[in-house]
Amino acid sequence: MAIRTVVIASGNDGKLAEFEDMLGPRGFEVRPQSEFDVEQPPETGKTFVENALIKARTAAEAAGHAALGDDSGLVVRALRGRPGIYSSRFAGADAGDDDNIDKLVSELEGLPEARRGAYFYCCLVLLRHADDPAPLIATGRWHGYILESRRGDGGFGYDPVFYDPDMGATAAELPAGEKNRVSHRGRALDALMEQIDDAGI
Amino acid sequence: MAIRTVVIASGNDGKLAEFEDMLGPRGFEVRPQSEFDVEQPPETGKTFVENALIKARTAAEAAGHAALGDDSGLVVRALRGRPGIYSSRFAGADAGDDDNIDKLVSELEGLPEARRGAYFYCCLVLLRHADDPAPLIATGRWHGYILESRRGDGGFGYDPVFYDPDMGATAAELPAGEKNRVSHRGRALDALMEQIDDAGI
Repeated sequence: MAIRTVVIASGNDGKLAEFEDMLGPRGFEVRPQSEFDVEQPPETGKTFVENALIKARTAAEAAGHAALGDDSGLVVRALRGRPGIYSSRFAGADAGDDDNIDKLVSELEGLPEARRGAYFYCCLVLLRHADDPAPLIATGRWHGYILESRRGDGGFGYDPVFYDPDMGATAAELPAGEKNRVSHRGRALDALMEQIDDAGI
Repeated sequence: MAIRTVVIASGNDGKLAEFEDMLGPRGFEVRPQSEFDVEQPPETGKTFVENALIKARTAAEAAGHAALGDDSGLVVRALRGRPGIYSSRFAGADAGDDDNIDKLVSELEGLPEARRGAYFYCCLVLLRHADDPAPLIATGRWHGYILESRRGDGGFGYDPVFYDPDMGATAAELPAGEKNRVSHRGRALDALMEQIDDAGI
């Protein structure tokens, strides 16, 4: 079943450009869901993969094309996986990045470095059509640990307190290009492209 | 977060032995869900991964341990992915393997080989606990095409009409060892073990 058009189930222009860069050269026509009548679905899943599926399925149903959904967030071991799928609303429905970081740092207060392990996680789901029972699923993890205070001005979300010991920097201190190469999102995209090439779709 | 005990969300002894063989040497204690009070959940998902998640989550909740769920079936391109998650009940709720095969062969009647492409698909999900937002997800595909009539006495399900051109045999003609090596299930297991080794859990 050849896919020609892929609808991106996201309103984020940065993501759209990123998918275009990866999928365009592989012969796909990438279109934003804003071109179609897609109502933003409630994210009722308990896992990243379920939320990515919900987004992709809503877009595939509305557009009548293949659709790519994504979901991502921060998983902290000492918090049994939290903030997880609630990463962007950890400190409440109207919370901003600073509120979420403050809450995270406060919950980990006093823990030694060895117990501050965390990873950013990204899940991508490519549904060939709304009823596809076997979507391509690609995940990426970026391992590091949570600092006690912020470092760096770049990025967004939890980037200023997420420290990657291999890079010797927080996510907010890395240049965008370098961050894309090592990030959960970059790894998930690489894994998805590998699957697309393998599956010959 | 180290996992010690993994509950297998399946009542199938063959699967249990297979998981034991792979996970035991990696230091996991594998336990069947029959040891716990696990009620068989309704498989309400629209995809294999959702059904595998439902099984794993039910087992993790009841047992209070990590749990491994799986779901698998046959995906036929000319049927837009059907029988898919309904593979075992394609010809009805009480259908047996023969009924399902008859229905499949009849739906593909008259189609040339090039349009009879299909794959067996297996999805494995490892939840570290019931609220794990980022379970390990591993998938495997076994590509082939659907014959017009049965060949071979081994296996189960659609095996007698699933032909693998690389092996030059149907799934029902392959010795069990060889089938496990090339099958969707074997590939998904390999992919899961790779993820477990990578994730260091």
